Amino acid sequence: MIKVGIVGGTGYTGVELLRIFATHPEARVQAVTSRKEDGMPVAEMYPSLRGRVDVAFSSPDKARLTDCDVVFFATPHGVAMAQAPELVAAGVKVIDLAADFRMQDVAAFEKWYKLPHSCTDLLKEAAYGLPELNREAIRKARVVGNPGCYPTTMQLGYAPLLKAGVIDASHLIADCKSGVSGAGRKAELSLLFSEASDNFKAYGVSGHRHSPETIERLSHLTSDKVGLLFTPHLVPMIRGMHSTLYARLTKEIDNAALQALFEDAYKDEPFVDVLPFGAHPETRTTRASNMLRLAVHRPGDGDTVVVLVVQDNLVKGASGQAVQCMNLMFGLDETTGLQQVPVLP
Amino acid sequence: MIKVGIVGGTGYTGVELLRIFATHPEARVQAVTSRKEDGMPVAEMYPSLRGRVDVAFSSPDKARLTDCDVVFFATPHGVAMAQAPELVAAGVKVIDLAADFRMQDVAAFEKWYKLPHSCTDLLKEAAYGLPELNREAIRKARVVGNPGCYPTTMQLGYAPLLKAGVIDASHLIADCKSGVSGAGRKAELSLLFSEASDNFKAYGVSGHRHSPETIERLSHLTSDKVGLLFTPHLVPMIRGMHSTLYARLTKEIDNAALQALFEDAYKDEPFVDVLPFGAHPETRTTRASNMLRLAVHRPGDGDTVVVLVVQDNLVKGASGQAVQCMNLMFGLDETTGLQQVPVLP
Amino acid sequence: MIKVGIVGGTGYTGVELLRIFATHPEARVQAVTSRKEDGMPVAEMYPSLRGRVDVAFSSPDKARLTDCDVVFFATPHGVAMAQAPELVAAGVKVIDLAADFRMQDVAAFEKWYKLPHSCTDLLKEAAYGLPELNREAIRKARVVGNPGCYPTTMQLGYAPLLKAGVIDASHLIADCKSGVSGAGRKAELSLLFSEASDNFKAYGVSGHRHSPETIERLSHLTSDKVGLLFTPHLVPMIRGMHSTLYARLTKEIDNAALQALFEDAYKDEPFVDVLPFGAHPETRTTRASNMLRLAVHRPGDGDTVVVLVVQDNLVKGASGQAVQCMNLMFGLDETTGLQQVPVLP
Amino acid sequence: MIKVGIVGGTGYTGVELLRIFATHPEARVQAVTSRKEDGMPVAEMYPSLRGRVDVAFSSPDKARLTDCDVVFFATPHGVAMAQAPELVAAGVKVIDLAADFRMQDVAAFEKWYKLPHSCTDLLKEAAYGLPELNREAIRKARVVGNPGCYPTTMQLGYAPLLKAGVIDASHLIADCKSGVSGAGRKAELSLLFSEASDNFKAYGVSGHRHSPETIERLSHLTSDKVGLLFTPHLVPMIRGMHSTLYARLTKEIDNAALQALFEDAYKDEPFVDVLPFGAHPETRTTRASNMLRLAVHRPGDGDTVVVLVVQDNLVKGASGQAVQCMNLMFGLDETTGLQQVPVLP
Repeated sequence: MIKVGIVGGTGYTGVELLRIFATHPEARVQAVTSRKEDGMPVAEMYPSLRGRVDVAFSSPDKARLTDCDVVFFATPHGVAMAQAPELVAAGVKVIDLAADFRMQDVAAFEKWYKLPHSCTDLLKEAAYGLPELNREAIRKARVVGNPGCYPTTMQLGYAPLLKAGVIDASHLIADCKSGVSGAGRKAELSLLFSEASDNFKAYGVSGHRHSPETIERLSHLTSDKVGLLFTPHLVPMIRGMHSTLYARLTKEIDNAALQALFEDAYKDEPFVDVLPFGAHPETRTTRASNMLRLAVHRPGDGDTVVVLVVQDNLVKGASGQAVQCMNLMFGLDETTGLQQVPVLP
Repeated sequence: MIKVGIVGGTGYTGVELLRIFATHPEARVQAVTSRKEDGMPVAEMYPSLRGRVDVAFSSPDKARLTDCDVVFFATPHGVAMAQAPELVAAGVKVIDLAADFRMQDVAAFEKWYKLPHSCTDLLKEAAYGLPELNREAIRKARVVGNPGCYPTTMQLGYAPLLKAGVIDASHLIADCKSGVSGAGRKAELSLLFSEASDNFKAYGVSGHRHSPETIERLSHLTSDKVGLLFTPHLVPMIRGMHSTLYARLTKEIDNAALQALFEDAYKDEPFVDVLPFGAHPETRTTRASNMLRLAVHRPGDGDTVVVLVVQDNLVKGASGQAVQCMNLMFGLDETTGLQQVPVLP
Repeated sequence: MIKVGIVGGTGYTGVELLRIFATHPEARVQAVTSRKEDGMPVAEMYPSLRGRVDVAFSSPDKARLTDCDVVFFATPHGVAMAQAPELVAAGVKVIDLAADFRMQDVAAFEKWYKLPHSCTDLLKEAAYGLPELNREAIRKARVVGNPGCYPTTMQLGYAPLLKAGVIDASHLIADCKSGVSGAGRKAELSLLFSEASDNFKAYGVSGHRHSPETIERLSHLTSDKVGLLFTPHLVPMIRGMHSTLYARLTKEIDNAALQALFEDAYKDEPFVDVLPFGAHPETRTTRASNMLRLAVHRPGDGDTVVVLVVQDNLVKGASGQAVQCMNLMFGLDETTGLQQVPVLP
Repeated sequence: MIKVGIVGGTGYTGVELLRIFATHPEARVQAVTSRKEDGMPVAEMYPSLRGRVDVAFSSPDKARLTDCDVVFFATPHGVAMAQAPELVAAGVKVIDLAADFRMQDVAAFEKWYKLPHSCTDLLKEAAYGLPELNREAIRKARVVGNPGCYPTTMQLGYAPLLKAGVIDASHLIADCKSGVSGAGRKAELSLLFSEASDNFKAYGVSGHRHSPETIERLSHLTSDKVGLLFTPHLVPMIRGMHSTLYARLTKEIDNAALQALFEDAYKDEPFVDVLPFGAHPETRTTRASNMLRLAVHRPGDGDTVVVLVVQDNLVKGASGQAVQCMNLMFGLDETTGLQQVPVLP
């Protein structure tokens, strides 16, 4: 039984980890830290877990995380890099759901996250936790930087096209839409029901930190210079992410071949589902599951390809993906504990 | 492996059965009927099931339901009673999610459902499928009438009080609220997003057919005459049901004793969770799970007790409860395949 | 032109006052105070008002409220009673949307609001701002305590029955449901979209401060002792309130006579709409308007009458009613500036 | 008083016309046709209009539309062109909210709407009803084709850029999102609350009939060939539309000059609000009003400009715009009856 620690269990990615581990057959949550809620049973804050999770929050100093086999950081940026060295030294694997170990470009990290990076040694060896594009590195990693939710959809949507060299990598446009839980469990006015419901808006149009992360990773897939215009939007729904990806074709390729690029790329992937050419995936078909679904379009048989990608931002976009990485790191079947069927309706 | 047939798999209780059976370790769906969708893979209508359910709809005549061990009817009222005799004769167990086998009072059935009852013989032996109040009968039944969603909450909320004889059974008031999926997957104007969203209303206030069902069952729990005023409301949410149950106390009883009535009644029940006295259960703490949660209140320490009951109307209120009955009928552990953790947020 | 001041214009009742006054032909908002937002144009915080409201927030000390003809307090409880004496002394009329001037029972106020009442002299002369039941007092008042949102529905729903003496006043049950904006514009976790959406819950079941207010006012309508069990619930919608009111009949009265009680009571009221007997009013039919609609039911022709009442909690339940009071206090037609047609869908 | 007729008053654009005319000081609805609801008071179907609209539906043959001064068609495509000739011959002005009179390219109309065009004479003289770009033609028109909701946002968002000749017109990308009411009041499964809520999807990605309409109109603004990739999406909200418009710059232009293009273009427009450069307009800031708001972005000061446009799809995107046209056609101030302040929250 893998002994799991969770730092920062009170947010949405934390409780989602708890939900997943409640039925994971090979792992058991042994510690969940929260300085503020020390001693409170997790199921008191989240009654959905009553009878299923009997651990209590403990303050970080009491949590004895070094006794765990793996520790997940479901914390703000900056926490994992402060605590990872001690854990790794003690032989504990680390999976950070924040950004500390996502980008190798330290300068970009420091610019976008406005934090000095205090742990560049571990960063160098850290694996980027997107199994479909980086599986072998994850298997061997001591530290994993779990991808951002938007970057997961952009990378899996653009990868087959970039690898095949059929699109203009310099002018990608990603118009992305996220459910409100993607903004986290924060008491902010703009996230109130009365503000966010029955409303739609873009945000961070002039620049969002998921851009440099995505560009860095996409650049591994092509020798061309990658240029990305990424526009995030907020959708009045709890969970779900829909990315509408545009790219200009630079080579003659027919639609069957386009579709084949995706089917070939993902034919053995348990968590990537390529829909028939021209389909319209709905976010709800992935709700509460680790599935990502996508469909390829070519409107008017023109020179622009459109890829529609959907996922649950809290599962494949965060906690599910982190557990998928853990499974790899511990030699388990990658789908262990991640077989939840999407909840529809 | 139990061979399962589902008649009427295109509605919400049908797809919910499919979702549950996709991970049920002891049963396999062998046939799903739909006259209209004959030949269409189930996962084409419900892409959430892609890769998880590979059965196709078949027209009723081809479905060979008599080869199944159990057949669920997720159909409009009247269908199960027409087909049950043949199935039962062939040794197939029947679980009807509609009303055909819920009420022993045939006259009441015919009045409220405006259908002649064509199968009163089987009705007589049918068990009412509420395990917490009728477990032994279900175990032995060939035919189960699965309770309505509202009646489940009302019975489990009132039962401890009625059995203890501490309330005035003649003037129960049940103010109940349901998510929109409770109305089924029907192309009706009043169920449109643009009609039901950001809106709240009562319906059927002068009379709803879940009243006679509830009264008949509650009458088994007390020798007093049961009078029930039941008011259903429509909530702009997909899943979830909240019943606010009022009853006048007729005996001196302190709050600790009140609470103990509920804790004793349900202490061994895997799917009924009694919250601390005075708690406020939220529907989302049961979302997509078979749990029902309740809490007892006594405002101002007055003479009225208020019981708050929540469940997911499609699971404990319908398909989950039906599988719970099936588990009992086939000698399985009652929780088999029903261990989904509620999805929150 | 009536010169209007608003203290606390950043919350939902504040911005709703601004929306109403933007088209009120006889009044002009001259000052809106907010200590925190001093100098910021109102339309910058609320872009919905761009081009329609050109006033800026000013800090209370600069706002020169004593130059106004009337000042509305859209503030937390306790603010109005601190500032009202100076304003009234200067000849300014005061309308408080909080609770400071609602209840004559000072002890009850202090118990429920946990504040000492610092202004009992003005409280004594203050008029309760429910025009339909207290019009003459409002006309002459210098200080008006605007009713709570729930109490408005409960009083207008029970009044005809209590005045006619046909119900048991000692055991009223009011099961009420409110949209989330009723909780105000506060950065609280429980009000987040991801917490409140697709969810339903009761709150404050053991006691809510709208109870003593309602009981005090209902007691003016009957010589019987009033007992009220009031259960508030939170609905995942922005605006709207639905109260389901139960009362036991104590006299023989047929349904036509019941209905006539309500039609007679409200036949000249511009903002109370009595629907046909047995109708089901929807909250959306009052959205963004000052209308309150109600319908009377008598399920099974039994001894319990059910009154369904709907309103927009921010308009008739708050800011619209406050303007209605202002119109009366200044001798205007009561409907001036309140003719907005409900927004449906 | 302008005598108004409405053909097809039971849908959302029909009821929105009724809401607007309820407070329009210069026009009165005299007839609303519905074959199915002949004789039913409008306010019975839409209780939001009780006390405000006292007209009843009448069957088309009884409606005496030729007595009206203007007739609005809030009908499916094809109805207006069948009835317009008789009305125009009788001196009645016609405003069609469907597509019959939007496109001069008859072949394109017939291809996309799968209808032969039976009224090409009137089509030739019909004015496209977008006042900001076609005001003079509307003033003189006998027949107006009211624009589609999406095309309104695309045209007003791209027009200043196209007129200035600073973008590549051949590769416009419009990623647009609409609330569910945009799909109309139709009893379709995909529009059910339980299907559309907490969900997001694209639709019609391979081709949507608002594309040819938009391309035809944009082509009037530039001598370049217009190429448009238009992707519509469905947002779980009732009202509101958000278009995210992308265009590649072909000329050197700084951000201030970009912003000035828009401010100059719309400085006298009562219903177009240009927000500060880099702002993020929210759909709710236009809810239930005739305002369209937009903001210009240039991410990373790169070569792509992004225009964010929001409106209420039922008002500026349909019925409000139609009334704006009527005001022009009858020599009224363009804002008459359209001064509703957006409803927020």
